[in-house]
Amino acid sequence: MPDSSTRPFHHVAVAVESIESAAPLFELLTGRSCSPVEEIPDQGVRVAFVGEVELLEPTDPEGTVARFLHRNGPGLHHVAFEVPEVAAELERLASEGLELVDRTPRRGAGGHQVAFLHPRSTGGVLVELVGG
Amino acid sequence: MPDSSTRPFHHVAVAVESIESAAPLFELLTGRSCSPVEEIPDQGVRVAFVGEVELLEPTDPEGTVARFLHRNGPGLHHVAFEVPEVAAELERLASEGLELVDRTPRRGAGGHQVAFLHPRSTGGVLVELVGG
Repeated sequence: MPDSSTRPFHHVAVAVESIESAAPLFELLTGRSCSPVEEIPDQGVRVAFVGEVELLEPTDPEGTVARFLHRNGPGLHHVAFEVPEVAAELERLASEGLELVDRTPRRGAGGHQVAFLHPRSTGGVLVELVGG
Repeated sequence: MPDSSTRPFHHVAVAVESIESAAPLFELLTGRSCSPVEEIPDQGVRVAFVGEVELLEPTDPEGTVARFLHRNGPGLHHVAFEVPEVAAELERLASEGLELVDRTPRRGAGGHQVAFLHPRSTGGVLVELVGG
């Protein structure tokens, strides 16, 4: 039974060239329907969810997701955990020596507060915190 | 409400050099405890779970996970969905044009039947099917 100190899995994100082109594949795999697409101009992306899979399409050709696609092609991009309060969690993890991409929360998909941790300190995995 | 045609998210796997070294980080992130380690000699790996994160450590230096680590370093490796019956799901997905790594199910972690799909046909994402 999870208690209040657990941070449940929230989603796994896949970088794609086009949400509209990629959605049918993930609908086929999961049996779930793709959500409406949301623009997140701050992060230079459009996003949509197929179950627990977030499809992440760059809108800014100089942004981090565009650079990821250029370097690696489409594929797994990050994993997100839900936390009670993002600012407090950033403080907790920084005090444990983890390196933050975002020192303060910003607005992510669905209006949630989000922040990213640097993969240098998280075993090569880009980790997102999503406010509950 | 999921119905019987949905294939729920099962886990996201991270390739690591050492489960024992990586587990404390994922315990810190998720607030969950690492499971006992399981050897899967067929796949040349040892695995353990921290919540929905599977830690995947190569035991065979010529195996696919060892090659992944050599090429990419540690990081996100695959995503797994739970399906009612792996053989039937392989047939369904092959008939939809998806390319299979495993034509028939094999034994994976926890004694589950598992099979992998080729990332060439799944948007660059290595996908595992796990029998329910």
